[in-house]
Amino acid sequence: MEQKFRELKARLQEISDLGNIGAVLGWDQATYMPPGGGAARARQSALIGQLAHQKSTDPDLGKLLDDLRSYEESLPYDSDEASLIRVARRGYEQLVRIPSNVMAEFYEHASLSYQTWTEARPANNFAKMRPLLETTLDFSRKFANYFPGFEHIADPLIDFNDYGMKASSVRKLFAELREKLVPLAQAISTQPLADDSCLRAHYPKDKQLDFGKKVIGQLGYDFQRGRQDLTHHPFMTKFSLGDVRITTRIKENYLGDCLFSTIHESGHAMYEQGIRMELEGTPLANGTSAGVHESQSRLWENIVGRSWNFWEYFYPELQSTFPNQLGKVKLEDFYRAINKVEKSLIRTEADEVTYNLHVMLRFDFELQLLEGSLSIRDLPEAWHERFEKDFGIAPPDDRDGVLQDVHWYANLVGGAFQGYTLGNILSAQFYAEAVKAHSEIPEDMQKGKFSTLHAWLKENIYQHGSKFTASEIVQRATNGSLSIEPYVKYLTDKYSRLYGF
Amino acid sequence: MEQKFRELKARLQEISDLGNIGAVLGWDQATYMPPGGGAARARQSALIGQLAHQKSTDPDLGKLLDDLRSYEESLPYDSDEASLIRVARRGYEQLVRIPSNVMAEFYEHASLSYQTWTEARPANNFAKMRPLLETTLDFSRKFANYFPGFEHIADPLIDFNDYGMKASSVRKLFAELREKLVPLAQAISTQPLADDSCLRAHYPKDKQLDFGKKVIGQLGYDFQRGRQDLTHHPFMTKFSLGDVRITTRIKENYLGDCLFSTIHESGHAMYEQGIRMELEGTPLANGTSAGVHESQSRLWENIVGRSWNFWEYFYPELQSTFPNQLGKVKLEDFYRAINKVEKSLIRTEADEVTYNLHVMLRFDFELQLLEGSLSIRDLPEAWHERFEKDFGIAPPDDRDGVLQDVHWYANLVGGAFQGYTLGNILSAQFYAEAVKAHSEIPEDMQKGKFSTLHAWLKENIYQHGSKFTASEIVQRATNGSLSIEPYVKYLTDKYSRLYGF
Repeated sequence: MEQKFRELKARLQEISDLGNIGAVLGWDQATYMPPGGGAARARQSALIGQLAHQKSTDPDLGKLLDDLRSYEESLPYDSDEASLIRVARRGYEQLVRIPSNVMAEFYEHASLSYQTWTEARPANNFAKMRPLLETTLDFSRKFANYFPGFEHIADPLIDFNDYGMKASSVRKLFAELREKLVPLAQAISTQPLADDSCLRAHYPKDKQLDFGKKVIGQLGYDFQRGRQDLTHHPFMTKFSLGDVRITTRIKENYLGDCLFSTIHESGHAMYEQGIRMELEGTPLANGTSAGVHESQSRLWENIVGRSWNFWEYFYPELQSTFPNQLGKVKLEDFYRAINKVEKSLIRTEADEVTYNLHVMLRFDFELQLLEGSLSIRDLPEAWHERFEKDFGIAPPDDRDGVLQDVHWYANLVGGAFQGYTLGNILSAQFYAEAVKAHSEIPEDMQKGKFSTLHAWLKENIYQHGSKFTASEIVQRATNGSLSIEPYVKYLTDKYSRLYGF
Repeated sequence: MEQKFRELKARLQEISDLGNIGAVLGWDQATYMPPGGGAARARQSALIGQLAHQKSTDPDLGKLLDDLRSYEESLPYDSDEASLIRVARRGYEQLVRIPSNVMAEFYEHASLSYQTWTEARPANNFAKMRPLLETTLDFSRKFANYFPGFEHIADPLIDFNDYGMKASSVRKLFAELREKLVPLAQAISTQPLADDSCLRAHYPKDKQLDFGKKVIGQLGYDFQRGRQDLTHHPFMTKFSLGDVRITTRIKENYLGDCLFSTIHESGHAMYEQGIRMELEGTPLANGTSAGVHESQSRLWENIVGRSWNFWEYFYPELQSTFPNQLGKVKLEDFYRAINKVEKSLIRTEADEVTYNLHVMLRFDFELQLLEGSLSIRDLPEAWHERFEKDFGIAPPDDRDGVLQDVHWYANLVGGAFQGYTLGNILSAQFYAEAVKAHSEIPEDMQKGKFSTLHAWLKENIYQHGSKFTASEIVQRATNGSLSIEPYVKYLTDKYSRLYGF
């Protein structure tokens, strides 16, 4: 048995390494690759993807996983060994259902769709995307149908990213949250708009970068096992547990973009850097779900990075870094600026309160499109109407409407968005639990100390990688299940204080 | 047949892409990888190497090449198709003789040896390298013996890098060259040493980089299909014909290092960038031999980049870039400084005249070690003696003696060095031929125009990639065979004028 287990690990390590090699190719493409490298890089990425898929769906791997079933059952559920077999089997059984030619066709289609979108969005040309998006929707239904027995056709797609969640459970959760968010946003909208002009002075590039690096180094991002580079869209990527990189972008006329995207991506990265080194080279060496991953980026970005206590510590340093821009701006005013709530067009630029309304709109459309109760043809108009209803403002065009997010244009329709709001909900739930265990955490922040919080997150979440599912992680870390209460309380407390109601 | 030819191309494209993916991993490791990434990267590089080796030695590939023999014979020798089959077969027949387990063992050994060398060299610890180097020598003999029928045991190893050359032909060539070089170096050494103190002021990093980029852009390096980054040791690497990158390093207290290494690597890169795009994704899309490759780096670095005419054009710009350092230095003195001849310890820092003596010493030792007429144990002492004899100075230690070059410590012993001197010889031969065809080339340089020279090299050398062997390229480009005459004439003319004898 031990021989077979070693063979399993060797196979899984190759699959993991191929995935990581693909990540290096993608990182280079986004950071440094010259224009002439594009055509060959697409081919190279496809080749690595194909090799990884072949090895991931090799029938010998399936056989090995079958053979190891009794070994797995003889071991404790939470042992590394049993977890490895269990999680590898889950991945294998998922991948093996999708015929590899369909997978290849989809990758080719998705690549074309993405390329077209990079031009169609700036050109505000939804018509150009329509046939491609229709094909994407066909693929999405096809993929879902490889997993028969679902309650809702979106369920298998949700499962890919947030294992264990279903359309019905997400819908219920979102309805509860919406009921709390809408009155909160309403209450805030009756107050005068916060003034964030102090963030919109000229902030030189290098100083922004250096300040951001200083901050995340102090939060616990390990630059010996990572680095930061510039890209058009910020992201986190991993080549091994010893090399977890982040990227950012800089707007010299807006301080908020680089700083908060840096903290956001460092949250994703600290999760991956915190995984136990013993899990390296296995499918366990990854964050466990989209929602739990996003909970870490949002926890560090918002609950920590937009908090009063955090800035009590960091603001003097920020002021001395940018004396002309912020020297005369009071902490109170800066704090209001970085927490300005305003109904706006773009999800990624939305504040904490309205952000989830953007997600819910997209999630609902995904379900309707998959069900067939909404057609791609009618999507732009439906977006327009729903947006106006939810936000009270109308998107002036499709560019900042239905075309704004890359997800549907580079991947499947379905399962792409719920993780963002699940992450917000979980961020507050985990943070509340950490503070329950260590009441000094908020005061520590005022002193620039984040190690107690970081250690709690590492102990309860990060170290496990994918050993446990999202709901198991929540259960273990909080002794309970997913709940919106801490998140609603966090938002209500913070914003009622800020806006004085 | 066309079906089989298409299958061959598809297989070769995968092999080529795997090689290029490995190059991306290596480039990242040398440029940006954080320390924590090392262990996994070694594993990932080995995996790609192993996949490439499997595909390169697949018996089905051999079968295909056999089947295509009559098709090849039906086509003109210099057609892309016949060349592809011919060159692919040569590569296949070479690789397939080395058992893949021996290849894997050697890679593992070479990696360990290299790691040890990075510490042993600074520590001046040859004793630590000795057993490793002995194993390397055993591997080198073993590899050579997979190709029985050689005249000298070094021949197969020379063949790997400079196809068609043998120990005897290199030895003869080097003896002829030596006969001319020694008196020239002798004559120079009776003259007062040139003063290069003007190169040793403080030259800020960014300005050095910008100036170097400006220069190579004007020579013809295409930044749309390449880029330059910083590394410890400068190199050129290629991910596709559309992405040919170079690296450099900067010493702020010495102007010569960054500038000339930049031009040197751009020479390698212009060769690769100049290969016809139709050859992309095939084994033809590479420079044809170590010697021809080095001829291009040395041609641009020395014959162009250290010439009077080149600096007549660029010196005013260099002066205005560094007014404090060079404002008062006359062009004559700068020209003497960058062409200072001095017997010195380090090959890579040697001037044009003494450089080849460093190469010849190493080449002779490679032959003796492989023959068994010199043992690794006696190598340091032999180095010391020979160096004193050839250069009139004694290396004070092994660090700057037998340990100085990475080659024997990261690869085989044998075949590693002759390409450098072959490159020097060829650089002058090609340049003379280009000037014969376009007499305006030297004057063009005074005007900062390099396109005629670049176009001649592209037409006669670059575009062909590996379609033709080195000797075929020489034959086609010069209507003759390899000859030291143009090189000896170049050196004699330049340095007798410089040193006034």
